[in-house]
Amino acid sequence: MIVNKSDIASDNQKSLQDHQDKFDFLSNSLAKSEINVDDLVNKLADFQVAIPSWALGAGGTRFGRFSYGGEPGTLEQKMDDVGVIHSLTQTAGAISLHIPWDIPTDYEAIKQKAAQHDLNFDAVNSNTFQDQKDAKESYRNGSLSNTSDAAREQAVQHNIDVIEIGEKLGSKSLTVWLADGINFPGQGNFQSALQHTEDSLKKIYNSMPEDWSLFIEYKPYEPNFYSTVIQDWGTSFMLANACGDRAYTLVDLGHHLPNTNIEQIVATLMLKGKLGGFHFNDSKYGDDDLTVGSIKPYALFLIFNELVQGMQHNPQNPYPAWMIDASHNIKDPLEDLIQSLEAIQEAYAKAMLIDQNKLMEAQAANDVTLCQEIIQSAYRTDVRPILEKARLERGGALSPIKAYRNLKVRETLIKERGLHSVASGL
Amino acid sequence: MIVNKSDIASDNQKSLQDHQDKFDFLSNSLAKSEINVDDLVNKLADFQVAIPSWALGAGGTRFGRFSYGGEPGTLEQKMDDVGVIHSLTQTAGAISLHIPWDIPTDYEAIKQKAAQHDLNFDAVNSNTFQDQKDAKESYRNGSLSNTSDAAREQAVQHNIDVIEIGEKLGSKSLTVWLADGINFPGQGNFQSALQHTEDSLKKIYNSMPEDWSLFIEYKPYEPNFYSTVIQDWGTSFMLANACGDRAYTLVDLGHHLPNTNIEQIVATLMLKGKLGGFHFNDSKYGDDDLTVGSIKPYALFLIFNELVQGMQHNPQNPYPAWMIDASHNIKDPLEDLIQSLEAIQEAYAKAMLIDQNKLMEAQAANDVTLCQEIIQSAYRTDVRPILEKARLERGGALSPIKAYRNLKVRETLIKERGLHSVASGL
Amino acid sequence: MIVNKSDIASDNQKSLQDHQDKFDFLSNSLAKSEINVDDLVNKLADFQVAIPSWALGAGGTRFGRFSYGGEPGTLEQKMDDVGVIHSLTQTAGAISLHIPWDIPTDYEAIKQKAAQHDLNFDAVNSNTFQDQKDAKESYRNGSLSNTSDAAREQAVQHNIDVIEIGEKLGSKSLTVWLADGINFPGQGNFQSALQHTEDSLKKIYNSMPEDWSLFIEYKPYEPNFYSTVIQDWGTSFMLANACGDRAYTLVDLGHHLPNTNIEQIVATLMLKGKLGGFHFNDSKYGDDDLTVGSIKPYALFLIFNELVQGMQHNPQNPYPAWMIDASHNIKDPLEDLIQSLEAIQEAYAKAMLIDQNKLMEAQAANDVTLCQEIIQSAYRTDVRPILEKARLERGGALSPIKAYRNLKVRETLIKERGLHSVASGL
Amino acid sequence: MIVNKSDIASDNQKSLQDHQDKFDFLSNSLAKSEINVDDLVNKLADFQVAIPSWALGAGGTRFGRFSYGGEPGTLEQKMDDVGVIHSLTQTAGAISLHIPWDIPTDYEAIKQKAAQHDLNFDAVNSNTFQDQKDAKESYRNGSLSNTSDAAREQAVQHNIDVIEIGEKLGSKSLTVWLADGINFPGQGNFQSALQHTEDSLKKIYNSMPEDWSLFIEYKPYEPNFYSTVIQDWGTSFMLANACGDRAYTLVDLGHHLPNTNIEQIVATLMLKGKLGGFHFNDSKYGDDDLTVGSIKPYALFLIFNELVQGMQHNPQNPYPAWMIDASHNIKDPLEDLIQSLEAIQEAYAKAMLIDQNKLMEAQAANDVTLCQEIIQSAYRTDVRPILEKARLERGGALSPIKAYRNLKVRETLIKERGLHSVASGL
Repeated sequence: MIVNKSDIASDNQKSLQDHQDKFDFLSNSLAKSEINVDDLVNKLADFQVAIPSWALGAGGTRFGRFSYGGEPGTLEQKMDDVGVIHSLTQTAGAISLHIPWDIPTDYEAIKQKAAQHDLNFDAVNSNTFQDQKDAKESYRNGSLSNTSDAAREQAVQHNIDVIEIGEKLGSKSLTVWLADGINFPGQGNFQSALQHTEDSLKKIYNSMPEDWSLFIEYKPYEPNFYSTVIQDWGTSFMLANACGDRAYTLVDLGHHLPNTNIEQIVATLMLKGKLGGFHFNDSKYGDDDLTVGSIKPYALFLIFNELVQGMQHNPQNPYPAWMIDASHNIKDPLEDLIQSLEAIQEAYAKAMLIDQNKLMEAQAANDVTLCQEIIQSAYRTDVRPILEKARLERGGALSPIKAYRNLKVRETLIKERGLHSVASGL
Repeated sequence: MIVNKSDIASDNQKSLQDHQDKFDFLSNSLAKSEINVDDLVNKLADFQVAIPSWALGAGGTRFGRFSYGGEPGTLEQKMDDVGVIHSLTQTAGAISLHIPWDIPTDYEAIKQKAAQHDLNFDAVNSNTFQDQKDAKESYRNGSLSNTSDAAREQAVQHNIDVIEIGEKLGSKSLTVWLADGINFPGQGNFQSALQHTEDSLKKIYNSMPEDWSLFIEYKPYEPNFYSTVIQDWGTSFMLANACGDRAYTLVDLGHHLPNTNIEQIVATLMLKGKLGGFHFNDSKYGDDDLTVGSIKPYALFLIFNELVQGMQHNPQNPYPAWMIDASHNIKDPLEDLIQSLEAIQEAYAKAMLIDQNKLMEAQAANDVTLCQEIIQSAYRTDVRPILEKARLERGGALSPIKAYRNLKVRETLIKERGLHSVASGL
Repeated sequence: MIVNKSDIASDNQKSLQDHQDKFDFLSNSLAKSEINVDDLVNKLADFQVAIPSWALGAGGTRFGRFSYGGEPGTLEQKMDDVGVIHSLTQTAGAISLHIPWDIPTDYEAIKQKAAQHDLNFDAVNSNTFQDQKDAKESYRNGSLSNTSDAAREQAVQHNIDVIEIGEKLGSKSLTVWLADGINFPGQGNFQSALQHTEDSLKKIYNSMPEDWSLFIEYKPYEPNFYSTVIQDWGTSFMLANACGDRAYTLVDLGHHLPNTNIEQIVATLMLKGKLGGFHFNDSKYGDDDLTVGSIKPYALFLIFNELVQGMQHNPQNPYPAWMIDASHNIKDPLEDLIQSLEAIQEAYAKAMLIDQNKLMEAQAANDVTLCQEIIQSAYRTDVRPILEKARLERGGALSPIKAYRNLKVRETLIKERGLHSVASGL
Repeated sequence: MIVNKSDIASDNQKSLQDHQDKFDFLSNSLAKSEINVDDLVNKLADFQVAIPSWALGAGGTRFGRFSYGGEPGTLEQKMDDVGVIHSLTQTAGAISLHIPWDIPTDYEAIKQKAAQHDLNFDAVNSNTFQDQKDAKESYRNGSLSNTSDAAREQAVQHNIDVIEIGEKLGSKSLTVWLADGINFPGQGNFQSALQHTEDSLKKIYNSMPEDWSLFIEYKPYEPNFYSTVIQDWGTSFMLANACGDRAYTLVDLGHHLPNTNIEQIVATLMLKGKLGGFHFNDSKYGDDDLTVGSIKPYALFLIFNELVQGMQHNPQNPYPAWMIDASHNIKDPLEDLIQSLEAIQEAYAKAMLIDQNKLMEAQAANDVTLCQEIIQSAYRTDVRPILEKARLERGGALSPIKAYRNLKVRETLIKERGLHSVASGL
C-alpha cells in the first residue's frame, strides 16, 4: 500500500485554517523573543529518524504475544510500511535492517523500493543473541565474548557478513548490540569476557570499509540477569576508544539502571566526540520499549537539549544516527511509530526554543531560579503548530494519526496481507 | 514585609496586553473543544496549597547547609513570608505548623497575623524524630513504636499537645510522619513495632476532637536505612482503617521506591475514601525534596488526573489537604515555593483539560492509541495564560517570580532581618 | 526415569564418613549454645516445597530460548522429573499444576503417578495472561479487570474450571497471578480496573469449595509496563480482605520494586493472618527468576527468620504454601531446582539457629550491636552437615547435585525422550 | 585510653580451647581440598584497612543526630580510638585524615602517637563540599567545577594544601571526593562542568610529589539531586586517564545506582590498572553508609573475589588503598567499625577459599551449575576460626566485640572525655 501526497493533502484540507491560525499566533509570539520560527521549521523538516525492520510487527514479552492483523511478512512489505509512515510524517526517511531476519534476496529490487519511498538505508544490525538454524556454534554462552574460539569466530564472521550486506545497500555503519553476559555469579570471568569482546570488536572494526562507523551499544541487564559484558556507557566508551576513531558509543534510552541521568551521558559523549547513535523509546521500569515520550517526556526534552547543544558546538562529534527501538505489544505498530516520531519532533522543537544565551548568563550568575524558568518556558510552549508546519511543507499530514485512520491504512493492509500474517523475525 | 495589591497591579501593567491576547486565543481555541475556560479559571483560583512553617528557610543535607540571607527567625516572620507568596500567587492561602519548632507564644496575635495575610491554619505536624532539649525519653530507638512504654507515652502525649495547639488556631487535622524504623536486620521486631504503632495511633486518634482528621504518612527509608515501620501506602492504609473513619493516608510524592506508580496509589485511596492529604515535591533519586514539577512534570500531571477524577467522582473521599514539602537547598526558598505553586497549578489545569468522555469511550473500545492522544493533547497545551488569568482575577501577579524580583522582596527581607538570620527549626 | 533409594544410598557411601564427622562436630558445637540439632533436622526434613509443572523445561526471555535435551513433553514426564528431584533432595514433595498447560487426561493415572513419587498436589494455577486457541474472548486488554463483561466472565469461568480440575486431584488452593494492567497512561481507568478485579475475585472465591483457599499474587510490572492492577502487597491484601477469610496474599520474591524490604511485608502479613503462599526465586534487577539464593542469600535468610517466627507465633496465619517459581534459561532445569532447594533449606536452617530469646533481650535493651551479632552468628554458621543429615534420614542424597550427575540422570532422560523434546507450556 | 596486649590475652583465655578445636577441625577439613590455611591466615593478618578520622564520632542524617558519650574531641583522641580498634582487631593499622577537620597542630606529636599505636597515615582527604569560616569563595555552586575562576582556584589550592599536610605525615595519596553537581535541569552546563573538573584535577595532579597517587571518587547523587559531575566509574576513569599514570578511580560501595554490578566495575578497573582505592560500607537504598556486610554480605564476597583475582593477576594495578567509610548513626562507632572489619575479613577469607583452578575449568566447559557450586561452597564455609587465628597471632582479640565490652572501653572513654564530648568535623 502506498499513501499518496494528494490523499494526504485532501485529508489536511479541513484542518488547514485552524493550523494556520495557530501557527501564525505562535510564530508572532515567538518572534517577540527573537526566535526565528522558519529556521526551526527547516531544522525539524530535515530531522529524519530510521525505522528498524523488526518494528513493523507486533512485539511481545516472555509471557506471550498478541498478534496484529496485516503484519508485513517480507522485507518488501516492511519497507512499504515504513513508506506509509514516512509519507504521513515526513520524518521517517530511513530504514535500519536487522540481519539475519531481513536479508534481501534481490538487492536491486530492494534499492528501487527504497528510492520509491524516499528511504535511505541506515545502520545495519547484527544478531548474535539467538541461534540460527544450522548454525555450527551456539550463542547460549556468549558470542563475541565466548570462551570458545570457534563461537567467537562465528560471531565475528557474522558481523563481517552483515557489513557486506550493508555495503550493497549503501549503509555506512554497523550497530552491535551484544547480549553477552551471565546469569549467575561465577558463571564467567569478567576480565576475560571483556578482553575477548575487545579483541572481537577490533576484528570487526578492522573489517569495515574506511568510510564506515561502528556503533557499540550498552545495556545493564536482560536477557542476562547477573551481568552484561558491555554494561554501561563507560564500558562502551572504553571499547570504542580501543577500536579506533570510527568506533562510537550508541545510547538506547531504555538501557540504563533506574534513575540514571542520561542527558549527562549524552553531553559527556558528545564532548569527547564519541556519540555515534541514539535509539529512542520510553520506559518506566526497565527496557520496556514503550512509545517514545509516553512516560517521561521531560527527560526526553532534556536529552534533546544536550543533543542540540552537541550538534551545534561539538564538531568533534559526528552527526548521530537516529533510530526508534520500541516494541509494539499492544498498539498498531504503525500508529505507535507515528506517535513516537511526533514525540521526538516535539522534544527537538522545544529544545531549540531554549534561549541559550540567557541560559548561559543565568548559569554564570548562578541564578538557579532563572535557569529553571528558561528551561521550563521552552518546555511549556505548545509547539504542535510548528510540527504541523514542518510536515505540511514536505507534503506530510497535519495530523498523521488522524490521516492514517481516515485513509484506512490498517484496513487496507489487512485486506492486502490477511488478518493472520506474521512478521518475520522476533 | 507586605506586598500590596497595588504594587502587584502596577507591575502587571506592562504584560497585561500580551497576557490578554494569549488568553483570548487559547480560550477561543479551547471553546471549540467545548471546554469552559471560565469554569477552569475559577477552579484554579479556588485551589489553595498550604506552605509548611519549616519551608521558609534554606534547607540542607547531611553534608551541610548553605544559608540564605533574610531568613525568618520567628513564626511571625514565617507567616509574613507565606503572606508574600500568597499575595503574588493567590494560591498559598494556608500555613501548616510544625511543632515544636513553631509553637505560638501569643495565639491571638498569630491569628490576627493569619487573617491579615488571608491565611488558614492547615494540618498541624508533630515531631518525634528528634530529641528536644530536656526531653525525658529519647527517640533514638523510635517513638510511637518504641519498645519502651515511657518513650511511646511521651510520643503519644506530644501528639496530643500538638492537637491542642492546633485547636487554638483553628486547624482541623494532625499529620503524623513517623521516622520510626531500624538501620540493621534484627535491630527490632517488625511485628511488635507495627503493633505498638497501631496502638499508639489509636490513642492519638481517640484524643482528637470529633471534627478532626488524622493523616498518616508513609515512607520507605530515611532517616532509617534498613526498615521504616510505616513503609508504604498499604501499611498506612491498614493503620488508618484500624484507627477509624477519620484516619487517612497521606501521600508525599518523594516517599516511594524507585519507579512506583504513584497515580495508581492515589486512585486506589480515593476509591476507598482514604486519601487524606498530599505533600508536593519532586525527586529523581529518593526523597530529594526538589521544586515541584522540576524533574517529572508529566508524572505530576498524571497524578492530578487521578486527583481531579477522585474529587469529582469519589464522594466517599474527603477534600484532601494540599501542602508543599520541599527543601530549598540552593534557591531562594520563596522563589522555589513560587515555582512549585506554578507547577502545581499547571498540572491541575492540564488535568482538567482532559476530555473525560472521549477518554472513557476510547478506553471502552480499547483504542490505546487514541487514549494516549487524548491524554497527551491535554498535556501539550500551553496553559500559562489560564494560570495568569486565575491569579489576575484575585489580585495576584501575572508572573509571580518576575514580580517578586521587581518588587525587590528578598532585598527588603535582608534589610529587615539581616544577612545572617537563621530560620528556627531544621 | 526413576532414581532408586538404593542407588542413592550407594552413591552416598563414599562421603558418609566425612559427613558424619562434620555433623558430629557441628552438633556438639551447637549443643553448647543449647541448640537441639535433632529437632532442627526433623523440621528441615518436614519442610516440603512444591515444584510447578512449568519449571521442568528450559525457560527463555523475549529475545529467545536455548532449549535443553530431554525436556519432559507430557504431564506424566514432568511428574517423573519432580520425582527425581524429590528422591534426591527429599524436599520436593509436591507439584503445582498450571492450567491449561497441564490438564490431566487420565486423573487416576496421574494420581497413581503422584503416589508412586510420594508427591502431593499443591495449589493449582490459572492462566489468563495468554489467549488459548479457539478462545472466544481475548485477554489482550485484560482478564478479571477487562472492560468487557464477556472477557471477564470467560476469565472467571476459567478459574472455576481450574478449581474443578484441582478438586479431582486433591488440591486445596487456587493461585491467581493476574498479568492485567496497562502499558500507557490513560489506557485504562485505575478505579474501574480495580473494582472489576475485586468483583471477579469475589466470584471465584465464592465458587471455591469450603476447604479451599485463594492466593492472590501481586507484581509491580511485566508483562505490562506502565501499571499492573494488583501492583503490590497492599492491593493484594485489600482484595483478600474483600473476598473473605480464606483469601490470602501470595508473595513471589521477584515481584517487588528495587530495594523493597520483603521480610517486613512477610512479617506484616503473618501478623494479620494473611500470608497464604510463597514463591521462591532470586533476582538482581526485576523478576529475573534466577535460582533461589544465587544473588541475595542473606535477604533470603532474613525472610526465613520472619517465616519461622510467624509459623511459631502467629496461629492466625495458616501454614503457607511453598513453591519455587524460577526460569531455568541457562542451566539444566533439574539441577537448577536442586540448587534452589538447597538454598531454601540452608536459609531455613540458619533462621532456626537464631537465638530468639537473646535477640529479644538485646532488642528490648536497644543493644543494636548485639542484635546484629546474634543474627550474623546464625548466618555465618555452616549448616551443610545439618542439611545432609536431614536428607540422609529420609533416604535422599548427601549431595543431590553430585548424585544427579553420578547417576547420569540427564543422559538417561535424553536417551528416553530425545535431544529435541520440547516441554509443553511456556 | 590504651588497650594492652596483656589485657586482650587474658580476655582471650576462656575461649582459647574452643577456638583451637574449631580451627583445627576446619583446617583439617580444608586441607583435604588442598587449601593451605597457614597461607590464608598470613594473608588475612597482613590485610590492613584505614579508619577515617571522621568515623569515630556518631554520624547523623539531615533529620538530626543522636550523639554518643565519650566521643573524641581532638585528632589525638581520634587516633587513640583507632588505636583501640587496631589493638583488638589487628586489622586497622592506618588512619585517613580529613582536612580541614583534622589538621595536626604538632606534627611530631601526631607522628609519635601514630607510631605508638602502630598506625600508618593512609590517603588524605580534601573537603570542598562545605564552606569553611572566613573562606573567600563559597562552594555553594561547586568547587573544582565552579563557573567562577576564583572558586575553582581556591578549591585547587585547598587540595594542594592537603597534599602538603599529608607529606609531613608520610601519606602517599590524595582522595578527592567531589560533591559538585546541580539540583535542577539547566542549573549548569554538563560539558563545561566536566571540562573545568578535568582542568582542576590536572592542576592538583601536577602538584603532587612524584611518589603520590590521586584517587578520584565517583557518586551518582547526594548532596546534589539532579546531577553529579563525576557520576560514575566511567567518568572517573576518563578523568584519571586524562590526568596521568598515577591517577586512579576510587570505588565507594555506596556510590552506585540501584542494582549496579559493582564487582564487574572492580574487575574492569583492575584489568585496566586503574583501581586506586576502595571505601567499604553497606547500604540498602542509597549511600546509607551502614556497617560493612550488614545488608549484602554475598555481594561483598563477590567483590572480594574480584579483588583477590586482581591482586594476584593484574600487576598493572597498584595495591589498592582500603578504607571504611560508614556513618555510625545508631551504634557505638567503635563497635560498628569492629563489626565492619570482621565482615571485611570474612569476605576476604571466603574469597580466598574459592578453588580458582576448578572454577576456570568449569567456566571453560560452560558448566554453569558447577560454577555456582564452587562459588557457593566457598561462601558457605564458616571462616570465623581462621579470622580468630589471624588476630590471635598478632596479639588481637579472639572476639573483638566481646573484648571491647569486657575491657569496658566505652565506659572508660566516657569517664575520660565526658558524656557530652562532641567529635570535631561532621
